[in-house]
Order: sequence, then structure tokens, then C-alpha cells
Amino acid sequence: MGDANLRTLAVIGTGLMGGSLALAARARGLVDEVVGYDLRSDRLEAALERGALTGVAADPNEAVESAGLVMIATPVSAIPEAFATIAPHLVAGAIVSDVGSTKARIVSQIEKDAVGGAYFIGGHPLAGGEQEGIEAARPDLYEGCVWFLCPTETTDPGAIRSLVRFVTGLGASVMSLDPARHDELVALTSHLPQLLASALMGFTRAIAESEGGPPLVAAGGFRDMTRIAASSPGLWVDILRENRSAVLGVLERFGEHLSSVRRLIEGGDWEGVEGVLSAASAARRTLAGKPGVAAEALVALAVPVPDEPGVLSTVTTTLGEAGVNIEDIDIVHSPSGGRGTLVLTLNGEESARLATKVLGEKGFVATKAGTL
Amino acid sequence: MGDANLRTLAVIGTGLMGGSLALAARARGLVDEVVGYDLRSDRLEAALERGALTGVAADPNEAVESAGLVMIATPVSAIPEAFATIAPHLVAGAIVSDVGSTKARIVSQIEKDAVGGAYFIGGHPLAGGEQEGIEAARPDLYEGCVWFLCPTETTDPGAIRSLVRFVTGLGASVMSLDPARHDELVALTSHLPQLLASALMGFTRAIAESEGGPPLVAAGGFRDMTRIAASSPGLWVDILRENRSAVLGVLERFGEHLSSVRRLIEGGDWEGVEGVLSAASAARRTLAGKPGVAAEALVALAVPVPDEPGVLSTVTTTLGEAGVNIEDIDIVHSPSGGRGTLVLTLNGEESARLATKVLGEKGFVATKAGTL
Repeated sequence: MGDANLRTLAVIGTGLMGGSLALAARARGLVDEVVGYDLRSDRLEAALERGALTGVAADPNEAVESAGLVMIATPVSAIPEAFATIAPHLVAGAIVSDVGSTKARIVSQIEKDAVGGAYFIGGHPLAGGEQEGIEAARPDLYEGCVWFLCPTETTDPGAIRSLVRFVTGLGASVMSLDPARHDELVALTSHLPQLLASALMGFTRAIAESEGGPPLVAAGGFRDMTRIAASSPGLWVDILRENRSAVLGVLERFGEHLSSVRRLIEGGDWEGVEGVLSAASAARRTLAGKPGVAAEALVALAVPVPDEPGVLSTVTTTLGEAGVNIEDIDIVHSPSGGRGTLVLTLNGEESARLATKVLGEKGFVATKAGTL
Repeated sequence: MGDANLRTLAVIGTGLMGGSLALAARARGLVDEVVGYDLRSDRLEAALERGALTGVAADPNEAVESAGLVMIATPVSAIPEAFATIAPHLVAGAIVSDVGSTKARIVSQIEKDAVGGAYFIGGHPLAGGEQEGIEAARPDLYEGCVWFLCPTETTDPGAIRSLVRFVTGLGASVMSLDPARHDELVALTSHLPQLLASALMGFTRAIAESEGGPPLVAAGGFRDMTRIAASSPGLWVDILRENRSAVLGVLERFGEHLSSVRRLIEGGDWEGVEGVLSAASAARRTLAGKPGVAAEALVALAVPVPDEPGVLSTVTTTLGEAGVNIEDIDIVHSPSGGRGTLVLTLNGEESARLATKVLGEKGFVATKAGTL
């Protein structure tokens, strides 16, 4: 970590995601200055007027020239290029992250391009909406959401600690995942649902229009199922292109699953149909609620670790794979060197137990460091 | 119309739908007495305790013995049998309807079985939810919803007028459709979405469980898309069985549509993908909101009609096909006989214009009878 001033934030792309991030960082007092840049000057001006920014920059280089923390909030396809543009202008020790919906290609591309002295950690908050633009931005967009961070073996421990603190300071919970795992997960839980919503909306509208008959009068279920179909087509093409192979995989398998349900109905196998519906109903009823972080439930876990590259990524992604959110990370270095202790702040006793178990399976010994 | 006392309502099946109907009819002062019957005596007692009923019956026959209006709110597969059971015990002029999610088979079966002196008109309110049972019932369940009525050529004009008044009295808007048309519409807008929600939930849960990896952390889109997957499997098997052929038709075509989207992604045809997403986004943004009925916007339309069987069904289903909701119907018979005038109350000038147009195409001359 260098001399970067983490209380100066640069936001590249001041739409819904970047604008909300800036609003939240200011509202929560996490930063003193927020300098924004956006390709569209009207959007940049609007962000300034809304109070999201303390200053605007004429180009991305100017935006980052005194920022200790840089958030790239452009469409996913533009993220590597945005990083390449700003990289030579970053201050020493600056931490750069993004809010793109895919991670594998972005992280590998940027790590390849990375310029010494600055750090990049891929991120993806599970927040947003079918609206877009600074007009839809709001300071509570990230409150209570899961924010994926995708550290790799080369990620600097100090940088990830600072980013975790910033993200949890926005009201989000950090889940750490390997970039490729992340992309498989969101193909299933985000990109497939988006395609189904769009396909359902387009399909029903086309039938209603081409075949006459009554208009699309629909109950709440249809409205729920198609809400995200209103999302920005351009942003989604970007995401689907970035995550093409994972998306194709789940689309094909989902198509087979749907065909199998159709065959049950076709064959009059009503017990089979009821089995499908029952399993889904039970699964939906036990779907975890939005994570709520109650401060009184925070638990600290101490994990002695060797002072080796990649150990932080191993520990945090192990927790992410188990579904454990990380509220904070402290890194205590041993005075004698060679070893250190990670102090992980987790939400609740159950998370701490699970973390102790999965870390134990990887050879780490976690002990409770006391309740905060 | 006979001497049936429309202020005594019988509700057969006092779960979410029947219980809410009873609560609403009482809360809105549409009836004096509500007698309930349910196969499950605990549910019947609970409905009485919740104040939905003024009395409980030991069997369906007893429930209907003094009712001018009978609503059957059992699962769809039990509706024809419920009607057959009560038919010999109905009072002269009693109006019987139902709230089942499918209509073609129910209406044709019951009209075949109908006993002289009572009237049956199939109905289906677009309301409900993934919860079930009297515990989830609420008096505002039907407020602002569309309530399909499916009159046929043999439907009595006086009976449909009374039922329209009752349904609009509950706060719903009546849309009149041919029973087969109704079933095609709901296959598309209700049964297909239900199957997609259940398939998506079951598919993602199965993958998450069988292949390890991170748990199903999902954003709002996934939650919206799977909300109705929590619905009662038993009720849905019933609905899918009743509407099997229409459901199979839309499932097969939707599967083809989804495959075509997959092929676009596979082939890297991003313009094609954007076209699909854009059409869906535009369609979703223009999806009509929930109908709200503002009393100041009601318009009355007078339509002279021959006094012939089926004319009422023709007029009202013509309006339904055009998406025009009917708020009230009055039937003024000509003193000389042979002709009469329907006075249709519609919601808003735009509905009145559309109604005049589509009725004109069928040879009816509609004129504005003044704004109410």
C-alpha cells in the first residue's frame, strides 16, 4: 500500500451504478471527494447536480489523478479498456475495482495489463434494476446487497482489506468468489432469468399481436416474471457476450429441463408434474432472504496464515463458496515475519461455525476472537 | 330471473379465493348472509371466526338452500362435481359462478348438467397469490383486478347483469371472454409463467445442490422470477391438467422461441440478441398497468339489440376480445317486445370509443348514453 488517499474516490461512469455508489459513499461519509467522469457529459452534469460528485473531470485520466480509490462503473465490455486508459495515471497504491456483472475475462485482462503500484480487484454488487441512468440512482441501492469480490492469487492483502471496508461501509456484505465461479453462478441466477424474462415477454406479446384475440391482460405472476425484461438491451448484450459460454451452457440445460416438464404433461404423468412443482415450491420457500446485517451479531474469527501470495484469496473464496459473507478483514502481521493472522468479521454465530469448518477442511485453524 | 335472494351468498370452498370473496362481499355490504361450506371443517371454522361467514353448512346442499348467489371456489377439478351436487338443491333463479383458473371444460360440463331454474356463468378473477388457505384471505384481494366472465349463447341476460354488479361491487373490472379463448389466454399469461418459475427454481436449486459451488445468492430479478414457484403444487397440477392441450401448445412454442434465442447467442449474432431484448423491453414498458377504475371516468353506452339468445354473449365477449372492461350492464326491454337496449357502463372515453368501433364491426350501433 502506498500513499494513496482513500478518502478521494473517482467514479468512471456515472449512471445508475456509479451514481448510486457516489451518492452512497458521500451520504455515509466514506469519502471527502468524489470526482466523476462519464462519456456522456449530460450524465456527468446531472450527477454533479444531484450531489453525487464533488467535481467532474474532462477525461478519465484527470478523474483518477488524485484518487486513492477508483470505481469503474461502465458497461462490462468497456471495463478493460477503461482500466488500460487510466492505468498510467493512477497514483501509487490506488485501489481500482469495478461493478461489472461478469468477472473472469475482465479480471484476467486487467491483471495482465496492470501497472505497478496500483491494485485491481474485480467486484460485482448484486443490485441494480430495470431502470438506468443517473436519474434512477439512489444512495441506498447497495444497502443489504451481496457484493461479490473476486481476488486472485496476486491480489494485495492490504488492498482487499481497504476495499472490503469501503464496500461494507456502503451497507453491502462481501462474498468472495473465484472469478470463473462467479461467472458460472451469475449465468444461473442472473443471466438465465434475464433471458427467460425477455423471452417470455417477447413471446407473449408476439402471439397476442399476430394472432389477434384478447389483449395481454395478466395477473401479478406475469408482471413479476417479466419485470426485468424492461432492462436496458444494450447493457445486457454486453453481459451475455462477456459470459457467452456459461450462458449457453445453462440455456441448453434449462431447455432440456423444460422439455422434460413438457413431456410429463404430455404423457399425463401428473405425479411427476406434482413432483416438479413440489420441489420448486419447497426450494422457493427456503430461498434465503436478502442478507440483513445486524451489528450485534458480528463475530470475529482469527485465522493464522502463512505470509504467502494467494493465501488471502484462498481463505476468502473458500468462505464465499460456502456462502459466508465477510463484513471486515484485518491483517495482523507477525513481528517476526513469515506468518500473520487474518481477523475476519462475520455475521452471526452460524456463519462463524461454517467458516471454521470449511477453513478447517483447507488446513486453516480458525478460532473465535471474541464477539464485537 | 326468479325469486332468488341475491343478498344471501353461498360460498363452496372457503380457502384463499372463497374466503376473500366472502370477506369482501361482507365488507362492501353486497350481501346480508354468507353461508359457507368446505370439505375441511377446520378451514370452515376458521372462515367463520375470521368473520367471512355468517353461517356454516354441514354439506353443500344445505349451504345453497336459501342462496340467490352461489360461488364455487374449490380447486378447478372439483368444480363440475360441486355443481352437480348442489344443482338439485338450488333455489329458482339462483345464479351460480366459480373462480376456477380454467373455463372451457367446466362451462361445457356444467351447462350440460344444468338444472332448470338456476343459472351458471363461469368466472375467473385474476387475483390470488402463492399463499393459500383462509389464513391468507383478505377483503381487498379482488380490488382493481380483472375478473373474467365467460357467458355463452345460453346465458341468461338478467343473470349476467346481476353477476356483473356483484363482481364490480367487489372492486373488480369485468372482462367477458369466450371460454375457449379464456383458456388460451391464461395458458399464455398465467400457466406458462407458472411453469417457467417452477422450472427455473427447481433447475437452479438442483444444480446448486448437485454440483457444489457457492449457494444460490440471487438478486431481485431471480426472486421476482421465482416468487410464484412457491404456489401450491396440488392446485397447479389441477389447473395444468384441465388446460393440458393449450398449455402443451404454448410450452412447445416457447421452447422453440428459447432455442432460437440460444442459437443467436451461439452464433454470436449480437444484433439479433439485441433485437430480441429490445422488443421485450419495449413490450414490458408498455404493458398495461393494473386497471384502476375512477368513478368520474365512467361512460354509458346504449346498444339496441334484438331480443335473441346469445346476443348478450356476443356483445360482451366482443368487448372482452378488444380489452374493454365492463363496469355494469343494464338491459332495457322494449315494451313492444322483440328488441331491447343494452346499457353498458365502461371505464373512460377511450374504452367507449373502442367499444363503439368493435361493436360496429359486428353490426351493432352503440351511442353514448351520457356520462355518469
